[in-house]
Amino acid sequence: MRKANLLYAQSGGVTAVINATAASVIETAREHAGSIGTVLAARHGILGALGEDLIDTLALSAEELRALAHTPGGAFGSCRFDLDAPEANPTQYDRLFDVFDAHDIRYFLYNGGNGSMDAVAKLAAAARGRGYPLVSIGVPKTVDNDLVGTDCCPGFGSAAKYVALAMLEAGLDLAAMTSRIGRVFVLEVMGRNAGWLAAATALAARTPDEPPHIVLMPEVPFEEEPFIERVRATVERLGYCAVTVSEGIRRADGSLVMEQAHDRKGHVQLGGAGQQISRLIHARLSYKHHWAIPDYLQRAAGHLVSATDHAQARAVGRAAVEFALAGHDGIMAAIRRMADAPYAWSIEPIDVAPIANLERLVPREFIRADGLHVTDAARRYLRPLIEGEIVPPFAGGLPDYPRLQLVPVPRRLAAYAVR
Amino acid sequence: MRKANLLYAQSGGVTAVINATAASVIETAREHAGSIGTVLAARHGILGALGEDLIDTLALSAEELRALAHTPGGAFGSCRFDLDAPEANPTQYDRLFDVFDAHDIRYFLYNGGNGSMDAVAKLAAAARGRGYPLVSIGVPKTVDNDLVGTDCCPGFGSAAKYVALAMLEAGLDLAAMTSRIGRVFVLEVMGRNAGWLAAATALAARTPDEPPHIVLMPEVPFEEEPFIERVRATVERLGYCAVTVSEGIRRADGSLVMEQAHDRKGHVQLGGAGQQISRLIHARLSYKHHWAIPDYLQRAAGHLVSATDHAQARAVGRAAVEFALAGHDGIMAAIRRMADAPYAWSIEPIDVAPIANLERLVPREFIRADGLHVTDAARRYLRPLIEGEIVPPFAGGLPDYPRLQLVPVPRRLAAYAVR
Repeated sequence: MRKANLLYAQSGGVTAVINATAASVIETAREHAGSIGTVLAARHGILGALGEDLIDTLALSAEELRALAHTPGGAFGSCRFDLDAPEANPTQYDRLFDVFDAHDIRYFLYNGGNGSMDAVAKLAAAARGRGYPLVSIGVPKTVDNDLVGTDCCPGFGSAAKYVALAMLEAGLDLAAMTSRIGRVFVLEVMGRNAGWLAAATALAARTPDEPPHIVLMPEVPFEEEPFIERVRATVERLGYCAVTVSEGIRRADGSLVMEQAHDRKGHVQLGGAGQQISRLIHARLSYKHHWAIPDYLQRAAGHLVSATDHAQARAVGRAAVEFALAGHDGIMAAIRRMADAPYAWSIEPIDVAPIANLERLVPREFIRADGLHVTDAARRYLRPLIEGEIVPPFAGGLPDYPRLQLVPVPRRLAAYAVR
Repeated sequence: MRKANLLYAQSGGVTAVINATAASVIETAREHAGSIGTVLAARHGILGALGEDLIDTLALSAEELRALAHTPGGAFGSCRFDLDAPEANPTQYDRLFDVFDAHDIRYFLYNGGNGSMDAVAKLAAAARGRGYPLVSIGVPKTVDNDLVGTDCCPGFGSAAKYVALAMLEAGLDLAAMTSRIGRVFVLEVMGRNAGWLAAATALAARTPDEPPHIVLMPEVPFEEEPFIERVRATVERLGYCAVTVSEGIRRADGSLVMEQAHDRKGHVQLGGAGQQISRLIHARLSYKHHWAIPDYLQRAAGHLVSATDHAQARAVGRAAVEFALAGHDGIMAAIRRMADAPYAWSIEPIDVAPIANLERLVPREFIRADGLHVTDAARRYLRPLIEGEIVPPFAGGLPDYPRLQLVPVPRRLAAYAVR
């Protein structure tokens, strides 16, 4: 009898710890060699499944897997691609199940965010409808921390640690450089709709006078006057002011604060909110102004990940394999918080269909009444997620990240054009 | 007899290791308590000397100094302020020597870049002219690495490590996210006239196919066509392209590539070259594009400094005190390289007058013939400067940087309005 193979794929924006999840999935599957044949990895997420572009992870040694667990980026490639509805594009699903069947795939683990959970729900339903013996599992991952049903998302804790650390260090620089005419620093962090990363920068401050002095989140409509007044009051008191801005902040009329630009498909390209806010302050108050946009750096900082986040990234990978073997189909391996301090958590399976495509925003009780900062409740939630440090091995002054040789699985089917 | 006090001050953009120099100066002076009275620190550089705004470092414990040595920013505050020429503004010098005399200051150590070395030269000459017994010493510091007379500048190695690490990690993210239409990532680093930090990102690549694929330095006039062709060729080969851009790159006509904006004094505010280059690529080639601007983060990253840089920052501080006691006046504590590999270096005194206000640019032999990357000679020069890792103590998920209580020295003179 041929073994039941497991297909693992990465989707959406990658993180500093998604490869820790990948390594954990592969390692755990190897512990269950009696039940699981080979772990195949799709190149660039579901696109690799459609294109029959698969990697044989058996070629990766135990040592390589250990190194992979400390490497940022997505070792097998990620994608931003949504499956069509089964009724709208049945040939897409025909193709997927042809690929699954050709490679004896009986388990599908999709490591991603909201869109990936939608794909898991669709595939689980489609498999049941077709009578194909597939177990589909969602493995959470997103620096945006906006998945519903899990207390937090692997990838977020390390990005949160990065942005809090960035605000702490830039704040020390800012304080040293304070000039007689006032100085502001604006840190733009990721977050189109959810302000979780912006909120996390609040962890840099030990007192209300320490940076960040203002945190702008997409959950709160941006109002210029109270914001400018708060900047002015801060500079008058301290000589400087540090502001965190989510890339996706909007005005009360719904318009984005960032400069608008659209790519060819009409998607809005963000990235300018920090610059706009910095220039607004300069135009209104004539302070010296600097802004930083870490962009990819905040989600790729494998050089100093949160040990908590790393442990959770590994745990959801292990649990996903174990849930799959236990026959849980159409579920996500979710993190449940048992206590804030000392922090305690566990992994549990939750149905993926009700939570797919939902977004968990920063709740009102985590946002200060004036909308310009976070509350202590937010700090209690956030603090444990950034705790603990893991530094990868270094060589020649830089992290010694492996460049893995990926071995492709020979194709068994005709080519397929992804639409 | 009253002891000869030492005045230490920080100037220009701060770095991840300037406080290591400060701690080393104070610790070394304490070892010479028979010759040096108290180490005073000026708040905000020479402005603090003019304003008689001084700190008594005797209040700092040995433990606090050890923590200070691992804290980014500038503990005593920095400034961007050039002394006038003595003949143009003699009252400025009258004031400085009044402050020095009132506080028994016989040693002045100025920790900064080109402008600070000019101040050291001016003060040394002025003291001799007035017969005031002052020994003036320059202590190098700048992430720009553009001081003449020293093989490298403390602060540069850690910033270089940061930007190389940023390119390495962002490059892994970029590779994972590659889309079918091509993707570019642009990292903008500091460097108005000198491309040292841009060049350092080349250390991230182990092969020519690894990021960064293109390095744009201010030493090379930016030409759009060959650049765009190189981006296109890279994306056609790999699917993606990573570009490093110095903030100060210029076209052949001398115009800055970044968006121009001027502050009220007419100083150009840089910060947009990365964005401009990213948008240019998108406009010309329609690739997806991301850009990052670490800004302050690249020079404040105390969470992972170069051990080489840290050792040199401490060594120039120690040597500066020892040179002062040996009566070297009007000199800078310079780093001399004895060998690339294994890296060997020493500290020596060099006359500051001939090198003040000069700028050391990246030499031609470090720039590839096509002007779009660096040479192996550059890599041999740069590599040792980023080697070794020092991670500060962490608490609650973030570096446990001390917030020092600074004790002001009582004023003995009338107030003075800095002009």
